[in-house]
Amino acid sequence: MMAQAMEARDVTFIQKEAVMQVESGANYIDVNAGAFLAEESEVLKWLVEVVQQVTTQPLCIDTPDPDAAAAALRLIRGKAMINSITAEKERFAAFLPLLKAYDCDVVALCVDGSRVPTTAEEKLEIASGIIQSLNQEGIAPERIYVDPVVQPLSVDPTSAMAVLSAIEMIGAQFPEVHRICGVSNISFGLPSRRQLNRNFMVLAMQRGLDAAIIDPCDEQLMANIITTNTLLGGDEYCLSYIKAYREGKLAER
Amino acid sequence: MMAQAMEARDVTFIQKEAVMQVESGANYIDVNAGAFLAEESEVLKWLVEVVQQVTTQPLCIDTPDPDAAAAALRLIRGKAMINSITAEKERFAAFLPLLKAYDCDVVALCVDGSRVPTTAEEKLEIASGIIQSLNQEGIAPERIYVDPVVQPLSVDPTSAMAVLSAIEMIGAQFPEVHRICGVSNISFGLPSRRQLNRNFMVLAMQRGLDAAIIDPCDEQLMANIITTNTLLGGDEYCLSYIKAYREGKLAER
Repeated sequence: MMAQAMEARDVTFIQKEAVMQVESGANYIDVNAGAFLAEESEVLKWLVEVVQQVTTQPLCIDTPDPDAAAAALRLIRGKAMINSITAEKERFAAFLPLLKAYDCDVVALCVDGSRVPTTAEEKLEIASGIIQSLNQEGIAPERIYVDPVVQPLSVDPTSAMAVLSAIEMIGAQFPEVHRICGVSNISFGLPSRRQLNRNFMVLAMQRGLDAAIIDPCDEQLMANIITTNTLLGGDEYCLSYIKAYREGKLAER
Repeated sequence: MMAQAMEARDVTFIQKEAVMQVESGANYIDVNAGAFLAEESEVLKWLVEVVQQVTTQPLCIDTPDPDAAAAALRLIRGKAMINSITAEKERFAAFLPLLKAYDCDVVALCVDGSRVPTTAEEKLEIASGIIQSLNQEGIAPERIYVDPVVQPLSVDPTSAMAVLSAIEMIGAQFPEVHRICGVSNISFGLPSRRQLNRNFMVLAMQRGLDAAIIDPCDEQLMANIITTNTLLGGDEYCLSYIKAYREGKLAER
């Protein structure tokens, strides 16, 4: 649906989706035109302009291509996040000047060139390298969102455990750095994907995930985030929980 | 509803509930007549007989009164579980002969007389004492289900965290002993109780809960258990997950 709307340059559809995401509680709106290959940069710029017409919520520029990111950033009003830098030298070097010039927050993906880590220890090792490189370049830890890379459970039955352990280990070693991940990757190739996404979110929060790339329009997922935050002691006197209940956000299904 | 049906000695209602619980996947059927005070023992015996007429699933005799437990156990066919023994000396001494005579599994509640522990460390300390006393009496660790006592979040906003930590600490120190708890206690006094119960179950499983006193007819709670087991690596090739999906147990709500 989204790709078709972008293909057709359907301004109404895109703007409606952006407004829905903001109303559902999204802190950043992810803009991604990865499906368009050669045209990626053009479509990404179009997306940034169209979305900014209906919201002042910050955007997350989601592209592996530093030139496409640069072109999009020139259009950004206010602050932005970039998704993502990796340990790969060329990509790191190409994105770094953008982070400095635009004072962006940045997602650091635990990937090192051809190497996609599968164990928590490898994920931590790559995360450490990127965090240290960024710190040396003056990027403060609180601007960094480490993504330990969620592989589908259908491909590797230990993938959830590896990511959950990595989140905890990265948090223990670098407490000022944020932990983020693309939650729905976990369920790729399996049925009832939302069941897996919603439970994985709860498990990851317990390990210290403090940001996530999710569908904010999944009401049960959002209810889980509110509920789990309360269970984990982040909600004094359960006031946020009771407020969410009064607003109809915790309706039982 | 349940208390009224017991008051009226409504055999049909009780048997229907028992069958529903078995069909929903309950491993034990909890029988509890705590609402009847002086009549507790009579009602408990009636419950045991009525439930055993419709299922061979083992029962869990849920009473603090050793005499009521003894009377109920005399009627039991097959194996049973007792809920519960505590660190309180008189209660421990009164239940112990029943465990030995009937070869029961036993829930060990982390309560020491007047002392209801609130921190994970206190819960572990009381658990250690009960486990060691039981072991000295020849009760094998795998027959023991430690219940760290869930206090309502509405009374103590740190209660979920304390229980979750206790589950992990008890599991680390006594890996052969099971960890159990009454999940719905967490949500007492708060709205949308099932949201809290369902999320708490997921969190507790990650910490090592391997048994639970729950409403097996809450389909979403049961779906969470299946899903979380898969995420935590307990389901090779996701076969149980896919089977549950095909049986309609993971319908998205």
